[in-house]
Amino acid sequence: MIIIMKPDASEEAVGKIKSMIESRGLTAHLSRGDQVTIVGVVGDKTKLQGTNIEMAEGVDKILPVTESYKVVNKKFHPEDSTIQVRNTPIGPGHLVMMAGPCAIENHDMLLQTAEAVKKAGAAFLRGGAYKPRTSPYAFQGLEEEGLRYMKEAREATGLNVICEVTSLKALETAVKYVDMLQIGARNMQNFELLKEAGRSGVPVMLKRGLCATIDEWLNAAEYIASEGNTNIVLCERGIRTYETATRNTLDISAVPVLRSRTHLPVIIDPSHATGVRSYIEPISKAAVAVGADGLIVEVHPCPSCALSDGPQSLTFEQFDHLVRELKPYAALAGREFV
Amino acid sequence: MIIIMKPDASEEAVGKIKSMIESRGLTAHLSRGDQVTIVGVVGDKTKLQGTNIEMAEGVDKILPVTESYKVVNKKFHPEDSTIQVRNTPIGPGHLVMMAGPCAIENHDMLLQTAEAVKKAGAAFLRGGAYKPRTSPYAFQGLEEEGLRYMKEAREATGLNVICEVTSLKALETAVKYVDMLQIGARNMQNFELLKEAGRSGVPVMLKRGLCATIDEWLNAAEYIASEGNTNIVLCERGIRTYETATRNTLDISAVPVLRSRTHLPVIIDPSHATGVRSYIEPISKAAVAVGADGLIVEVHPCPSCALSDGPQSLTFEQFDHLVRELKPYAALAGREFV
Amino acid sequence: MIIIMKPDASEEAVGKIKSMIESRGLTAHLSRGDQVTIVGVVGDKTKLQGTNIEMAEGVDKILPVTESYKVVNKKFHPEDSTIQVRNTPIGPGHLVMMAGPCAIENHDMLLQTAEAVKKAGAAFLRGGAYKPRTSPYAFQGLEEEGLRYMKEAREATGLNVICEVTSLKALETAVKYVDMLQIGARNMQNFELLKEAGRSGVPVMLKRGLCATIDEWLNAAEYIASEGNTNIVLCERGIRTYETATRNTLDISAVPVLRSRTHLPVIIDPSHATGVRSYIEPISKAAVAVGADGLIVEVHPCPSCALSDGPQSLTFEQFDHLVRELKPYAALAGREFV
Amino acid sequence: MIIIMKPDASEEAVGKIKSMIESRGLTAHLSRGDQVTIVGVVGDKTKLQGTNIEMAEGVDKILPVTESYKVVNKKFHPEDSTIQVRNTPIGPGHLVMMAGPCAIENHDMLLQTAEAVKKAGAAFLRGGAYKPRTSPYAFQGLEEEGLRYMKEAREATGLNVICEVTSLKALETAVKYVDMLQIGARNMQNFELLKEAGRSGVPVMLKRGLCATIDEWLNAAEYIASEGNTNIVLCERGIRTYETATRNTLDISAVPVLRSRTHLPVIIDPSHATGVRSYIEPISKAAVAVGADGLIVEVHPCPSCALSDGPQSLTFEQFDHLVRELKPYAALAGREFV
Repeated sequence: MIIIMKPDASEEAVGKIKSMIESRGLTAHLSRGDQVTIVGVVGDKTKLQGTNIEMAEGVDKILPVTESYKVVNKKFHPEDSTIQVRNTPIGPGHLVMMAGPCAIENHDMLLQTAEAVKKAGAAFLRGGAYKPRTSPYAFQGLEEEGLRYMKEAREATGLNVICEVTSLKALETAVKYVDMLQIGARNMQNFELLKEAGRSGVPVMLKRGLCATIDEWLNAAEYIASEGNTNIVLCERGIRTYETATRNTLDISAVPVLRSRTHLPVIIDPSHATGVRSYIEPISKAAVAVGADGLIVEVHPCPSCALSDGPQSLTFEQFDHLVRELKPYAALAGREFV
Repeated sequence: MIIIMKPDASEEAVGKIKSMIESRGLTAHLSRGDQVTIVGVVGDKTKLQGTNIEMAEGVDKILPVTESYKVVNKKFHPEDSTIQVRNTPIGPGHLVMMAGPCAIENHDMLLQTAEAVKKAGAAFLRGGAYKPRTSPYAFQGLEEEGLRYMKEAREATGLNVICEVTSLKALETAVKYVDMLQIGARNMQNFELLKEAGRSGVPVMLKRGLCATIDEWLNAAEYIASEGNTNIVLCERGIRTYETATRNTLDISAVPVLRSRTHLPVIIDPSHATGVRSYIEPISKAAVAVGADGLIVEVHPCPSCALSDGPQSLTFEQFDHLVRELKPYAALAGREFV
Repeated sequence: MIIIMKPDASEEAVGKIKSMIESRGLTAHLSRGDQVTIVGVVGDKTKLQGTNIEMAEGVDKILPVTESYKVVNKKFHPEDSTIQVRNTPIGPGHLVMMAGPCAIENHDMLLQTAEAVKKAGAAFLRGGAYKPRTSPYAFQGLEEEGLRYMKEAREATGLNVICEVTSLKALETAVKYVDMLQIGARNMQNFELLKEAGRSGVPVMLKRGLCATIDEWLNAAEYIASEGNTNIVLCERGIRTYETATRNTLDISAVPVLRSRTHLPVIIDPSHATGVRSYIEPISKAAVAVGADGLIVEVHPCPSCALSDGPQSLTFEQFDHLVRELKPYAALAGREFV
Repeated sequence: MIIIMKPDASEEAVGKIKSMIESRGLTAHLSRGDQVTIVGVVGDKTKLQGTNIEMAEGVDKILPVTESYKVVNKKFHPEDSTIQVRNTPIGPGHLVMMAGPCAIENHDMLLQTAEAVKKAGAAFLRGGAYKPRTSPYAFQGLEEEGLRYMKEAREATGLNVICEVTSLKALETAVKYVDMLQIGARNMQNFELLKEAGRSGVPVMLKRGLCATIDEWLNAAEYIASEGNTNIVLCERGIRTYETATRNTLDISAVPVLRSRTHLPVIIDPSHATGVRSYIEPISKAAVAVGADGLIVEVHPCPSCALSDGPQSLTFEQFDHLVRELKPYAALAGREFV
């Protein structure tokens, strides 16, 4: 931690800061410049909790030097992690495809979709049983009934299944049915939910919040990890910007940024990022080329009849075509489909 | 709802859209332009659920005409509402001051703060018992113990008390102790929590999400209202933008925008909006001048020892001075302190 | 300037950085922490130009300590400036109203508007002769003919006149006719134009760029000031965010932020910030309450026939009413209308 | 154009709108809904200039149906364009590499860079002679001297050369030396410059503004095209968002969005988008995979001594490696290096 003093900070003010730091068992290094004095703090800064140095007389600002996330930090775990979901590895050398409808609408459409995406090459079936919707009057999901269909689809096809959970209650129910929990963008800082997901021990896919910084996202992952569950996959799904040509703005640079800050795998959701079906294929190729560990894509037997997200869903044929198109990109990127 | 056809949409495609609309008992009005054909849909558009017109052949885009929020919509309730919390009115003609520490740190600091803000003119004591923190290693709040202190402060001073709830469990506990629930920015789209707050019947202050649009915010309020609880106060607390000179960017125009879209009262949180103590007084004056129904301000007996948000907290003297400074502005705005 | 070394930086790497700094006649202060080593650089950092320390071996990042703007920086000129435009002071104790049409459409509408805003209490007539328009097919302004009408209006009413200049050629022409130049949001980083405005010596109102940070804005002002012209007034006109309920998002906190960083006066443009006529009055009150030195408002004899910005323009009666409404707020803020 | 009436608009108000439209020789189509009436306007809407329907009694809002850009619009030119710069094609089937230093610092470094990037496979040498810098005290470029070096490098290597122009004067000078003009992000709405670039007839690379929407960008291109010059290449270089992990946020989805809206080629600038050297390779692969027509990359003989943008510049070896790495991606995308 570095403390920048104001240009007119008195000797006495600097001395007080120094004493405060040393009284907590830390070391203070002073650099006196022509314009300002800088105080470097050496040692475990958590010892300073309850002392608001930022507000002490003569202090201009405080600059943190190290990140607050630890378990998910690459500095303390330099090798990229591979997350195992049943027998499916997510991580270096592999490319995972997750596919399925935005919402589970009924038994048949789900089973039909499961068969189709399995055949095309997906390793996971996705499907929403609990739908967070902007308006209370929109379709909210089949809840446990939907989860049962997911389990049935899993048994029929061997696919892993992943479902979003939007509350502790949903989480408690979901762990009985699914292989992987999804925590969605709107709940990225629902800390109770993160901690419970951590305690569950079940693999978690954590989506980035609509306007979360990468550091906030990693801190959210740390909430899960700090409960002992490091089976975490991050999912970039676009952030909110002023641009309205796409539903969100895919932050593709997040992939190399994450590679340098964390050892966790990262996958990309081109469906929510763009909101437009015809953009999914080019964006998916870019995702593989940039180094993502996988993709999660919305697929629906009849997008034009979908209860939600129809315009961004692929048909079975389109998904099959997508996987074929991605194959040479995966090969170039040194990844095998799982 | 309006459907814009593509320039090259065939007669047949237009005909199909028309049939689809009419088959659901709605009426389609066609306007054929030189470049494009437009289809106006008349009737209850919820009848179209499950038909993805947006994806039908020849359709370019869909434009909604009316808002999805109803109970909180000014169109259906043109008069501004006054929310009663015990004997305290929040709404036209009144100015409500809510004040207190970011986090309840211990019994004495809370009681002391309650006395001070009461004396200065606050009607509500605020204080966090459940703290949503970016890092899992930061102080997370005293939870129920904090709520007990709040109740004690309420009994000692007569102040109304308001606390943030971050989970269903916290909500269940909090309703036993507080006069008003706060749903924070990070939980604005925690729909389970919103619905439960609606069912509780307890007055709710709903903060705007970090990057929520005003319409998403009103839809979140609609989640509460749709469960029968219209005792809702909105709180603008700044949105996330690229500017880093302040913690967030206060969207002061949200006040007149909300006045035109909803009948609910709106208050402003200058502490979180700016994050800088010296900006709170000018921003508070602006808030009263623009027509806000109140302010929620962080006050701490010793900001430089605060466990969180110290740099944006006012001392007792500063809060007292703030209220005095606001008095003539309140008078000009036709409001009395409650 | 502070240099943060990587956790694994070698002694040798640290030594090299130290030598590089000292070889330029500066001093390096080392703070060795448990995790990282920090190097404080003392002295004139421009001596380091051409040495990319950021990229030297072992360096993690560089943190600047002082601002790059000097002449407009409050640190070197602690007292707030008053800018004189002819006999009109803009600065502490005064409130300046600038008003007029978005675009000068013809002779009569401009003269008529000048009379009306003068009578209502404006000190400046604004009017666009050179219009920066998103589409090349929209009305682009009357150019020099418009400037002539401005001068005529100035002679008829005694008002100061201000016009936007969008190119060096426009600037050269405008200085013959106007009392104050306006540099608009789209040209805030048109550095040639800034420098030429600096060399002209004519007072300048510099609007904030659509997505400029406050520091970039002050650096843009420094371009003008570094040419010897410190007659600069800043104008906050809203920034671009994801919110679409208003044309832009007024960053009202920019006023106290600027007060702490610069001595230059700041005025607010509620017309462009909101884009909605009915929001102008509440926002103007907030602007005065927060401490702005003035307002610039669009006024048109017939907003519903305006060639541009009609929906955000006030009628003569509305402007007259606005000024009356602002009077008690100005009095409270310790300002007299000029 | 579509006009949405307010729910309470009177018959008389609707009638007036209809008359106003028809009096201009256009046709009005009415759709009366249960809640609102909608008026579709058919015909050339420029005939409505000067009638502010938006402000007429009873009108709620206006929705545009067609874009204001015409010459660059894909609707009127469905086939993707290939821009010829001397003998180099930019467009479908080709991949163009532009490379060189941020700023031309001196003769030798430029010539040396030209040789190196030519050998590695670039078709264009980039280099800044006029540098737009945030602070007036930063290095501003060699101006005409720099352009002379560019011409010399062009003659020595056969590379095309491209330079940014930041003013009309710079443009007038540059056209004597360069093969392609660059208009930078800060000048994307410097309309005088755009028009002059249009009149010059020289090929132009137009970068996206820091916070420009794709539609504003296309309108800026239309300014150039409307002067008769359609030799335009668009360059996505990242937009400004709240995320600070990268210098800007690359909007990679802009590529498929542009493909659907315009026939102009689009290239990507990974150097400015990310600001971090190690992110350039993965982002460049993604750019090729998503379908970009080329890349513009900063290369410097000694990034650690660069006068500007050192941390994002590649060394010669790194650039050579980048081109090799991109080859199989280009092949997959059906493109040949030019």
